[in-house]
Amino acid sequence: MQGGTMADSSGPVWTPLVVLELASDTAEEAVTWLLRRIRDTQHNGGADLLVEQLGLGVETQKKQNPNLFLVGASNQRLLAGAEDVGLFKEYSDGSMRGFTCASKHNFKDFNGDGDGFLSMAECQYIIKHELDTLRAKDETHVPGHSHAKLYPGKSIIRRLQSKGILIQMFPLHEKEELKRLSFSWFKKLKLSLQPLDDIRHYYGEGQALYFGFLEYFTFALVPMALIGVPYFLFDWEDYDKYVIFAAFNLIWSTVILELWKRCSASLAYRWGTLSRKKAFEEPRPGFHGVLGFNPVTGREEPTYPTAKRHLRVYLVSVPFVLLCLYLSLYVMMIYFQMEGWVLSIHDEEPTFWTGILLFIPSIIYAVVIEIMNLIYRYAAEFLTEWENHRLESSYQNHLVLKVLVFNFFNCFASLFYIAFVMQDMVLLRQSLATLLITSQILNQIMESFLPYWLQRRRNKKMIRKVQKRATLQDKELPLEEQVRLEADMSTYLGTFDDYLELFLLFGYVSLFSCVYPLAAVLVVLNNITEVYSDAFKMCHVFKRPFSEPAANIGVWQLAFEAMCVIAVVTNCSLIGMSPQVKAYFPESDTQLILWTVAIEHCLLAIKFILSFLIPDVPKQIQVKLARLEFESLEALKKKFHFLNEITKIN
Amino acid sequence: MQGGTMADSSGPVWTPLVVLELASDTAEEAVTWLLRRIRDTQHNGGADLLVEQLGLGVETQKKQNPNLFLVGASNQRLLAGAEDVGLFKEYSDGSMRGFTCASKHNFKDFNGDGDGFLSMAECQYIIKHELDTLRAKDETHVPGHSHAKLYPGKSIIRRLQSKGILIQMFPLHEKEELKRLSFSWFKKLKLSLQPLDDIRHYYGEGQALYFGFLEYFTFALVPMALIGVPYFLFDWEDYDKYVIFAAFNLIWSTVILELWKRCSASLAYRWGTLSRKKAFEEPRPGFHGVLGFNPVTGREEPTYPTAKRHLRVYLVSVPFVLLCLYLSLYVMMIYFQMEGWVLSIHDEEPTFWTGILLFIPSIIYAVVIEIMNLIYRYAAEFLTEWENHRLESSYQNHLVLKVLVFNFFNCFASLFYIAFVMQDMVLLRQSLATLLITSQILNQIMESFLPYWLQRRRNKKMIRKVQKRATLQDKELPLEEQVRLEADMSTYLGTFDDYLELFLLFGYVSLFSCVYPLAAVLVVLNNITEVYSDAFKMCHVFKRPFSEPAANIGVWQLAFEAMCVIAVVTNCSLIGMSPQVKAYFPESDTQLILWTVAIEHCLLAIKFILSFLIPDVPKQIQVKLARLEFESLEALKKKFHFLNEITKIN
Repeated sequence: MQGGTMADSSGPVWTPLVVLELASDTAEEAVTWLLRRIRDTQHNGGADLLVEQLGLGVETQKKQNPNLFLVGASNQRLLAGAEDVGLFKEYSDGSMRGFTCASKHNFKDFNGDGDGFLSMAECQYIIKHELDTLRAKDETHVPGHSHAKLYPGKSIIRRLQSKGILIQMFPLHEKEELKRLSFSWFKKLKLSLQPLDDIRHYYGEGQALYFGFLEYFTFALVPMALIGVPYFLFDWEDYDKYVIFAAFNLIWSTVILELWKRCSASLAYRWGTLSRKKAFEEPRPGFHGVLGFNPVTGREEPTYPTAKRHLRVYLVSVPFVLLCLYLSLYVMMIYFQMEGWVLSIHDEEPTFWTGILLFIPSIIYAVVIEIMNLIYRYAAEFLTEWENHRLESSYQNHLVLKVLVFNFFNCFASLFYIAFVMQDMVLLRQSLATLLITSQILNQIMESFLPYWLQRRRNKKMIRKVQKRATLQDKELPLEEQVRLEADMSTYLGTFDDYLELFLLFGYVSLFSCVYPLAAVLVVLNNITEVYSDAFKMCHVFKRPFSEPAANIGVWQLAFEAMCVIAVVTNCSLIGMSPQVKAYFPESDTQLILWTVAIEHCLLAIKFILSFLIPDVPKQIQVKLARLEFESLEALKKKFHFLNEITKIN
Repeated sequence: MQGGTMADSSGPVWTPLVVLELASDTAEEAVTWLLRRIRDTQHNGGADLLVEQLGLGVETQKKQNPNLFLVGASNQRLLAGAEDVGLFKEYSDGSMRGFTCASKHNFKDFNGDGDGFLSMAECQYIIKHELDTLRAKDETHVPGHSHAKLYPGKSIIRRLQSKGILIQMFPLHEKEELKRLSFSWFKKLKLSLQPLDDIRHYYGEGQALYFGFLEYFTFALVPMALIGVPYFLFDWEDYDKYVIFAAFNLIWSTVILELWKRCSASLAYRWGTLSRKKAFEEPRPGFHGVLGFNPVTGREEPTYPTAKRHLRVYLVSVPFVLLCLYLSLYVMMIYFQMEGWVLSIHDEEPTFWTGILLFIPSIIYAVVIEIMNLIYRYAAEFLTEWENHRLESSYQNHLVLKVLVFNFFNCFASLFYIAFVMQDMVLLRQSLATLLITSQILNQIMESFLPYWLQRRRNKKMIRKVQKRATLQDKELPLEEQVRLEADMSTYLGTFDDYLELFLLFGYVSLFSCVYPLAAVLVVLNNITEVYSDAFKMCHVFKRPFSEPAANIGVWQLAFEAMCVIAVVTNCSLIGMSPQVKAYFPESDTQLILWTVAIEHCLLAIKFILSFLIPDVPKQIQVKLARLEFESLEALKKKFHFLNEITKIN
């Protein structure tokens, strides 16, 4: 056996990093072939990793899947992999540089053979990358599975995944580090900033940026919340004050979004992802098409004409989304009709039962909205899959856009209707408060407590089972059981839903801020609990996710900025419609509207000029990046000159 | 003498490329020192170029400046320089790649020792770069000029320029090529597209992109012009048709600006400037400050705190610009008062003299506008110089922004006043037509015919002088005379004024297009003559400019897009104000305004979505760029591996 042996029940002597779970009906020869390919040297086209089958658990039951494999790698291999994926690490002079094995001793914290130089999350990311880029040589199909076709250069793992032979691949938790992290994150009682560097160390940059944004966003809302409190306490109803609040809000949200870009650039620089170049992106697993040649790499891979994809997007997906929006509108109108009908019944002959009847339409509407969101989400995923995007990033962008538009419409349509068609500000405030509070409570329950409760039951069951057979004194599970337990945990599906929630909350705060200044207070309170519940669910409810290098929050920055622009329009109209403002223009509505429009245009212009004037990357980091680039150019020149000299001599 | 000798009156045996003119009172030792530094090998910190003093002309007069120097270089030196500046040339496989001497034989059209591989413009650009980067070693000042301080690393040429010792540095024309170019460009009678590749070959990418944009812009306006003609012919006055025209205009201008980006990317790719990385930018000649260390390169150079520059920009320049705008507004109001006053005199007692008096205010106003533009231009240049920008690009951006805002205001303020305050559509149409036609005629005269006439007189004088002494049969001037003639020609100050003119014309077409559809026709006609007159002035009126690599039209793209956005607002308001549209909403103005605003917002949204959806670089070129990057990454990997192997062996 290569690289390590397996002790009976304490696992291999090398650290297991990643778990592969194959379907229990996988052909024996396929397993042998896969293990051989994973273990094979890179020279032979293998991944040169260590891999062992997981011993069966304490209960050797038939229903347990025997095909669980632990994957690890030697230190040397991991360092070579770090160079392959273009990892940035801290250099001895404090700057972040791309790691290379040749210059490894110049990196900070590199001692001896580099043990402990890479964090576990980085090692797991490297192993994922190496497994993903394990390519078929001359195999035409997976041995024993003739339907799982292969061709030279096809990623083996991706084919196994898309054919359902590989059920899942996930990185293992590290109990000790997790304990430490969760203590400093949410278990200690003292209020403090989140340990972003530790989060990044354990979960990677993508997660850390989400928590960084959540924290930043919460702090950024505090001034709004503070200004909003007196409106609630003293029951300020005059619109002069609301105008001030709204104007402050609009400028403030522009500024905080611009500053977040700088903040995220600083974080990304510190973590070495800012100047990291994206490696060449491989096609996503589900991508299919006629075999052809990639025009960029010249490698053989499936190709799919862009024109066809455009046709699918513009002729099917766009009309579908529009239809869904129309349906949502239709449902909303039915709700308002029901509302009116119930009200008329109650007005005619008010009894106890008609009083209860008043709540029925709202409840039905709320439930229907949730159901529609759910169905739409599935439809959007199906459609985006069917659009057959070549790259994961392009798939994600299309999915995010679809879901975003519908969710925005579904959540805010009724508020827009109340504000601009019914023009009932009191009802608007009530609806806004109800929607905001309800959605916050529902979210916390659905997102954290329910999964936690389910997971806890599963945990207890497993521990009981273990204790039944071997009487363990401490509650530490042996490796086999731990792996099986983690394999059963829910999979964390990425930061999408978390960002979507923040986005909708931001909508509640900014769109109608001038009629309900208390919204910011509610959102701040919600965000504080959100930090804790999100942290908790990451640590104790979900499987550990693979870390993803990220330099910014991507498409969400754009989404938040778009919301900001819409907020200018809505707030200006709301203020223009208020009776107090109307009183200033007693003789003509025309004057009032023209002024409102002019002010709105000015605000929009100020927003664009502001976002143009504030540089996206802080000066200090710009200089550091420029210096790095300058140095690498100089070094490259020297190296090439040296190379030329050598080739001349030879 | 190094590298070449000077035949008595036919010039050096090497091709002279660039002329340096030193002040006639330059100290002898300074000249000797400079020539030595230019001729010295690169190893000794020189530029390794060939340089000779120009022999005195036919008339050996005292008033002729003897300090004219011709600069050239050996073929080998030029190729090495091409690698230094990162020139992109066509590779044997048709792609554009950075030239390196090591791989020179793989480039297309490289034969023998590479004679004729580089165009003359490229050679001149290389020589300019090499002269600019000729740095002081341990000199503390220019010999013989103790006030011209130097320090290690300071560019010598730039110090000589800023101290007035170097009067000018310009590239020579190439008579034969110029003749061929001007024939294919504007002298043949057949209408055809401009020879953009030849223009780029002779003048460089910056110029070629300007002419490319001029041509593109003209073609793009043709559809608008065609649609505009029937409005004029059939005297269509109903606003339904104007609405259609305006809507078409708005969408069309967005589309053409987006498509231009793609078009310019294609051109820049073909010319190899698209993927060319900017070399590290040196401080501009006029930049001054305390000696410090550049945080990026670590070299010694003047430094100036950014905060101080910001203070100058925001506390002095911005208020100054605002004051100028206010002044311009004030002048405009005086004009309207005069206009009213004259009209009242004429109405009281109309005579022939009062009829003439009616024209006086317009004439005065037009003259005052021109004078204000001129004064403002000087003030803007002075202020931007005083802001002390470190980089030429940053200086240019600040200057362009200042001039743009003021010119926009000065040219269009009266039209805005007529349109939105006086609401007099007939007067608006008249003013628009008058302004447009007058400015076109004035421009053509000021820009081409006047300088041409002056130049022609100078030319003839020189030829007469030459003929007086030696009786030359053909009118070809000997090299000395030719150089002196070119040294006396006006200097072309870059594409700034040309772009500014196009920008203002675009304003006339788009801002009020719905009241004067004929504007597009006039602009198309103007542009056609503009192509010829600009081409003519480049070839026969001005000194040859140094070629500047450029990948796009830079800040002008932004300026045109901003104009497009403003055009949406103005056109929507104009249509909303028209009596025909008002007739649709007989009962309330409010409804009308709300609809107008809603439509305006929709149009703006469509614009932004369109510019988001249309990719800036054509797919085909994206693929080519990605392939190049992929290949260079792979090659780099191999080279480094090779290097590592070698260092291991040694």
